[in-house]
Amino acid sequence: MALPELPFASIAELAPRLARRELSPVEVTEAVLARIEQYNDVLKAYITVTADSARHAARAAEAAILAGHYLGPLHGIPVAVKDLFATRGVRTTFGSPLFADWVPDFDAAAVERLKRAGAVIVGKTNLHELAFGTTSANPHFGAVRNPWQTQCHPGGSSGGSAAAVAAGLAFGALGSDTGASIRQPAACCGIVGLKPTYGLVSKFGALPLSWSMDHVGPMTRTVADAALLLQVLAGYDSRDATSVACSVPDYTAALQPDLRGLRLGVARDFFFAECDPEVVAAVEAALPVLRELGAAVEEVVLPDMAAARAAGTVILFAEAAAYHAANLRQRPQAFSDEVRALLEMGQFYTAVQYVQAQRLRRQLTAATCQALAGFDAVVMPTAPLPATPIAPEVPGHAALRPRNTLPFDFTGLPALSVPCGLTRAGLPVGLQIVGKPFAEATVLRVAYAYEQATPWHRQRPPL
Amino acid sequence: MALPELPFASIAELAPRLARRELSPVEVTEAVLARIEQYNDVLKAYITVTADSARHAARAAEAAILAGHYLGPLHGIPVAVKDLFATRGVRTTFGSPLFADWVPDFDAAAVERLKRAGAVIVGKTNLHELAFGTTSANPHFGAVRNPWQTQCHPGGSSGGSAAAVAAGLAFGALGSDTGASIRQPAACCGIVGLKPTYGLVSKFGALPLSWSMDHVGPMTRTVADAALLLQVLAGYDSRDATSVACSVPDYTAALQPDLRGLRLGVARDFFFAECDPEVVAAVEAALPVLRELGAAVEEVVLPDMAAARAAGTVILFAEAAAYHAANLRQRPQAFSDEVRALLEMGQFYTAVQYVQAQRLRRQLTAATCQALAGFDAVVMPTAPLPATPIAPEVPGHAALRPRNTLPFDFTGLPALSVPCGLTRAGLPVGLQIVGKPFAEATVLRVAYAYEQATPWHRQRPPL
Repeated sequence: MALPELPFASIAELAPRLARRELSPVEVTEAVLARIEQYNDVLKAYITVTADSARHAARAAEAAILAGHYLGPLHGIPVAVKDLFATRGVRTTFGSPLFADWVPDFDAAAVERLKRAGAVIVGKTNLHELAFGTTSANPHFGAVRNPWQTQCHPGGSSGGSAAAVAAGLAFGALGSDTGASIRQPAACCGIVGLKPTYGLVSKFGALPLSWSMDHVGPMTRTVADAALLLQVLAGYDSRDATSVACSVPDYTAALQPDLRGLRLGVARDFFFAECDPEVVAAVEAALPVLRELGAAVEEVVLPDMAAARAAGTVILFAEAAAYHAANLRQRPQAFSDEVRALLEMGQFYTAVQYVQAQRLRRQLTAATCQALAGFDAVVMPTAPLPATPIAPEVPGHAALRPRNTLPFDFTGLPALSVPCGLTRAGLPVGLQIVGKPFAEATVLRVAYAYEQATPWHRQRPPL
Repeated sequence: MALPELPFASIAELAPRLARRELSPVEVTEAVLARIEQYNDVLKAYITVTADSARHAARAAEAAILAGHYLGPLHGIPVAVKDLFATRGVRTTFGSPLFADWVPDFDAAAVERLKRAGAVIVGKTNLHELAFGTTSANPHFGAVRNPWQTQCHPGGSSGGSAAAVAAGLAFGALGSDTGASIRQPAACCGIVGLKPTYGLVSKFGALPLSWSMDHVGPMTRTVADAALLLQVLAGYDSRDATSVACSVPDYTAALQPDLRGLRLGVARDFFFAECDPEVVAAVEAALPVLRELGAAVEEVVLPDMAAARAAGTVILFAEAAAYHAANLRQRPQAFSDEVRALLEMGQFYTAVQYVQAQRLRRQLTAATCQALAGFDAVVMPTAPLPATPIAPEVPGHAALRPRNTLPFDFTGLPALSVPCGLTRAGLPVGLQIVGKPFAEATVLRVAYAYEQATPWHRQRPPL
């Protein structure tokens, strides 16, 4: 594998070569650091690059592997961490000046698990301010650029993670998703993003945006790599009060080249409305592929997701306002005008509105699970729009972007975005695959078979 | 057993006699109905007496037992149901004119379980309006009288259930508890009231007051009878979204005459403050009894329960206001001035206040569990005051009554009140025993040994 190619290999391709000592973690890490050096000034994907500690970790991984202590498929693999996760000894900004100088003395659970698996952390990626801004440009740390078209945003809030993975500046990354934030940037940057079932991956050490809607998950270039990262991330953690004690299956073992015996629903109502025609066309074109792979593909009608969006917004804004209440009072100037306005909006909801939203949530979640009962998974567009120019922002776009993703933060169901096309302008489109609670293995299986049957994951941004 | 005595027998005493066919369910039911006939006009314990269907059920139980189909210790036992639980074919008022004509076509889960166990439902007991009023007098269905002194209230909101059980108008009753409503009337009426761990007993078919604080539990004259009722009530129910799938132990088997090997905490901070001196004296006198029974009894300091009361009030009021919002808008005149004012108060809390209260709740619950870690159970007074005259209500009393009980609705921990004395004026005092999550068996064990060693459960109201 020649050097310019190496940063675009998949983790699943690299791992056996690292295990067999044909390739060194040092070599792999240097290739990624070189690419970061070359492109981060343009992309602004990383807020902090941890080159020194990455080199140290890579040498340690090399030594361990040479000594026969291979830890598994993430050992020696350079990965990025959204700067929403605490990292021991490494500045953690949460995309906000409030935390610009904070150096935690502990690792977030997801970071801890990546390190324990031997992954090499190369840096902390850029994000929306406090994961809350709706504009693509972080006013404090700069606008992340979409590697497919650098005048466009990469989606958010995990935009830095998506841009880094898409552009070969990391083999995988941690993201978080409260309304769209893993899947929408994955769709906009042509990579895979998985928001697991609520409670499957610990949120300990991640800045809360909305405690009852927040999810942590992997962003990778391939479905198989998402399975490898999820394998390490999933599992009970007593430090997260919402963590669920459930058994974690072998996600890689679930990947199969066909979809025989599966029944997939297409959720056209609501989810195809208000989408860009090129997005709809790409998703429609995916359906015959799924059928050819052996799946039965039929219409499914999900409950009223307009209500889910409205109620989810109340919950998200109120919980965010509660979390940031003290800082908003004491250091209002440390928030951008936009985020301060959003948090102030959150202060105006009443407790009755919040409680009604949570009651509706229970009902809609039960009704959605019931609608899914006859299906193995449901498909729809991930984001209604492809990436758009960073400026000027088109009025209405900010509100439109989480349309198809927020319902599954609201209901807590697992949802994955896999590339399913390019627009005529050369921007990626994402197919969203939604499963039953804790059925990540099935969601990954559907995504994997589709990915293997289509050319989209082999496309590269023209950077 | 002569007739005037029969209504005061315990379920545990009656059950073997019914099983051996020495006594008929018809005889037992007639004895209770006669007593209801004699005393309900004074006590106002029942809103609805279901004499006909009770007689029918008693005859059916008699026939089944004679035919060899004995269902267990509740078979043929007359019990009362707080009128907060839906009963198929029987008017269910929730203590409110809003529902004065409602005849459900289904049974609440707790009612269904009692019926399945063969219990005979003799009527629906009086309660605070929508279980929410703070005055002891239901403005629509009259003031329940305390059988120990009929000018006094019986405690609330399950006042009718408590008065009925104390006065021999039922052998046991269903209650519900959101801030005090099982334990405080149990204490005021000299009976046993058990609020189980949140999620142990299904709330399906019970009118919500505050979904995250509501609990369903038994009220009986003895601890052994509470164990028998809980055995039937406990267990997972998919119709209650907050029901917990946990194993249900044999509660009766856990009852032992001593407390050897147990470590009990006395929570003097907060819980002994603001209590009537006679209440404190009765609870202090219980401590040497617990020691003589073999328990180690030591001081325990629980987290700040003043904060729990404040936050619990926000949660309770906001959730109640949310639940009743539509009726409050459409039929404001169907609420008493008092309850309408309480619900309107609930509308003024902000979502941020509610979310902060729930966040504090998680922290206080974790801290309380941590404080309990070294103990098998913790004891304190149930109610700060004995029963007081129905009128005039002393200012401040209403706010004081849930002081010691609401913290365990807030934290969801199991808590039981057992009689521990009489004031000089002849009014009962309750000892509250609080356990770890799902440790009802231990709470019952402590209460049982104490009860067996003391005369209080043999005292009868002078009715």
